Amino acid sequence: MRTIKIDEASKKRLLEDLLKRSPNNYDSYTEAVNAVIADVKKQGDKAVFAYTKQFDQVELDATNIRVTKEEIEEAYDLVEQELIDVIRKALINIKNYHEKQRQNSWFDSQPNGIILGQKVTPLEKVGVYVPGGKAVYPSSVLMNIMPAKVAGVSKIIMTTPPGKDGKVNPNTLVAANEAGADEIYKVGGAQAIAALAFGTECIPKVDKIVGPGNIYVALAKKAVFGYVSIDSVAGPSEILVIADETANPRFVAADLLSQAEHDELASAVLVTTSEELAKAVSKEVEDFVAVLSRKEILEKSLDNYGYILLVKDLEEAIDVANEIASEHLEIVTKDPFTVMTKIKNAGAIFLGEYSSEPLGDYFAGPNHVLPTNGTAKFFSPLGVDDFMKKSSIISYSKEALEPIHKDIIKFAEAEQLTAHANSIKVRFES
Amino acid sequence: MRTIKIDEASKKRLLEDLLKRSPNNYDSYTEAVNAVIADVKKQGDKAVFAYTKQFDQVELDATNIRVTKEEIEEAYDLVEQELIDVIRKALINIKNYHEKQRQNSWFDSQPNGIILGQKVTPLEKVGVYVPGGKAVYPSSVLMNIMPAKVAGVSKIIMTTPPGKDGKVNPNTLVAANEAGADEIYKVGGAQAIAALAFGTECIPKVDKIVGPGNIYVALAKKAVFGYVSIDSVAGPSEILVIADETANPRFVAADLLSQAEHDELASAVLVTTSEELAKAVSKEVEDFVAVLSRKEILEKSLDNYGYILLVKDLEEAIDVANEIASEHLEIVTKDPFTVMTKIKNAGAIFLGEYSSEPLGDYFAGPNHVLPTNGTAKFFSPLGVDDFMKKSSIISYSKEALEPIHKDIIKFAEAEQLTAHANSIKVRFES
Repeated sequence: MRTIKIDEASKKRLLEDLLKRSPNNYDSYTEAVNAVIADVKKQGDKAVFAYTKQFDQVELDATNIRVTKEEIEEAYDLVEQELIDVIRKALINIKNYHEKQRQNSWFDSQPNGIILGQKVTPLEKVGVYVPGGKAVYPSSVLMNIMPAKVAGVSKIIMTTPPGKDGKVNPNTLVAANEAGADEIYKVGGAQAIAALAFGTECIPKVDKIVGPGNIYVALAKKAVFGYVSIDSVAGPSEILVIADETANPRFVAADLLSQAEHDELASAVLVTTSEELAKAVSKEVEDFVAVLSRKEILEKSLDNYGYILLVKDLEEAIDVANEIASEHLEIVTKDPFTVMTKIKNAGAIFLGEYSSEPLGDYFAGPNHVLPTNGTAKFFSPLGVDDFMKKSSIISYSKEALEPIHKDIIKFAEAEQLTAHANSIKVRFES
Repeated sequence: MRTIKIDEASKKRLLEDLLKRSPNNYDSYTEAVNAVIADVKKQGDKAVFAYTKQFDQVELDATNIRVTKEEIEEAYDLVEQELIDVIRKALINIKNYHEKQRQNSWFDSQPNGIILGQKVTPLEKVGVYVPGGKAVYPSSVLMNIMPAKVAGVSKIIMTTPPGKDGKVNPNTLVAANEAGADEIYKVGGAQAIAALAFGTECIPKVDKIVGPGNIYVALAKKAVFGYVSIDSVAGPSEILVIADETANPRFVAADLLSQAEHDELASAVLVTTSEELAKAVSKEVEDFVAVLSRKEILEKSLDNYGYILLVKDLEEAIDVANEIASEHLEIVTKDPFTVMTKIKNAGAIFLGEYSSEPLGDYFAGPNHVLPTNGTAKFFSPLGVDDFMKKSSIISYSKEALEPIHKDIIKFAEAEQLTAHANSIKVRFES
């Protein structure tokens, strides 16, 4: 891995480099995606069937588009019992963590008869997109479904592209069933997003669509935003490790690689105060890359977006971490908690040398769907809040309105909204 | 107002009718907006100055783009003291309500050395767009700035188009200053949104952009979503009143008109169990329209999107209200609280006959920036949450990781992510 001493110029270059990976830069696919969306919106299932034939080489119709109970049972026979057990253990942790996120409705009554409040209600129907293809991630199925489940969403509708045999990957099906998907449809790509956003004869319209996907899926989600809600548009994965001389270089190297292996756009950055650690990590990375199965991806992503940054002190490390706003941030220093309190921007923060990033991907409980590519400056991990929405509550008595009614009339008249003023006036006309 | 007995067919037509007002249907402007954005992204201030000259007929440069302290002081001289006093009173209520929304960071420690948590951090920089032109709404300035202020946003950057004299409306300036805007720039339209999203020499890049605007502003916000966060794309205003025979028809009529006056796309719907009330409200509406100053707008919006719907009972009224998911919902029935508990979808809910909608627009405290056009099914009122984001916290001890480390390895290997598995393995190699 290349090692650089950080300065303003190198930091700027690095930030620009990382942001190049943004899915927002793939506008050239927009037209194709918009055509698919328009088609599905207009023709419903007919278009969904045609695109599935074109892109997945599978003949769908109203009788086989939805995964049946039998197909789910069949999947259980195909998945190792040991994996099913792990999925169940992980789900308990994921459920427990997300239950702590739940916000309650609240009301506040004042003696003069004013009641103000906030009502929190789950979304009714949610669509969860699950990618197909070579890389199958049942953990991602759990992470997308469980917060909706904890929120109290009535209907969780999953879509995922079928394989050429017309079947859905059994690991995906078992994970979906364990997490609590209510309906599963064998549709992928932009056509799935369009079907969820507008509804078709077979697939119900939802209120919100979540879940990762390729560039077509990401652009389709962006296009239907407003008609429905969406989660944030996910970019390539990334890890940033802040480490001092107390860190174990072998652990740090292994953790950097755990994200670098995702794909060629993945980024792994070590920010360290210790030149010695930098050297040791660099050596360990080389040794691991030589033996790990995803060697080619690792080499490319490290070449493109792997950095070891030397900083003069932890304050500078914290500044760099806040500027990069990494999806995953590990803090492996003498006192990780103190460092953490100064972190403003990160998707998930892992503290200490036994909190390796994959622990969060699979097991600890917090969501692994995290803001990428600098968006941790303004987006949050997927959570229960994403599946609930609020309504304000306002209740005034006559006695409470009377002393302020002229203020409201004044304000409305200043905005030339005379019917607004009138609605207050009529209540106090004699 | 037209009165119809509701049935499935009429309900479907009505819903389709209302959704036609969606800002998502104005795709024809997209190209023009995208050109402005690309230009500002590439050329910065130069493009901002050129578009301001083109659209606002104002010559901007680096010396006059930002509103000065002197201009703010001048604005105070131009605004009635009485209005300033009302703004200050309203701000106290708005601040108090939003302070109740603030979520805290939390941590949860388990005896085996597991610490999980959620850190809540304010966004650093937020852009607030304020429309210019004929309709000036200082209340909207308060509602957009105050939740960001309560969240603890460090820098609130406002942009608003200048008048032909190169000045910003004094009511807008006073409201912005009272609410706590840190910097104000005289830029409007898609060029303002682009400047906030990407930064220019004069205007800082922000993390999130909020605030209403015309179709160009709405489309520009949608286009920059992902580079920055945005609030929901606002549509035309609307009110739905659920009323039974106990309601005062004069109050109900006045409240319907308070939203119908906004613009020709505004919608006002009464859903009532009482034919007598329907008739009385219809009559009162006619009488009010004849004397109110915004008669022409009122007539058009009522013609297009005004309805009195007769339902057989309150349950049906609640169903209709949940399907329409109105921005504003008034419940004027014998027992409004019981009805409210059954409401799933609404931006703000007003209970009882003295809680008229304009009370919420100006004074009660809850935000008046609300989801419109059916989006209350998945969006929330603007609030403190919109200006804060979360990071998950994960800290495991060696003792906590040991008993589950094989589970994580199993899961990672099932996903063929061998570097993920490796990062757990290295911690327990002998």
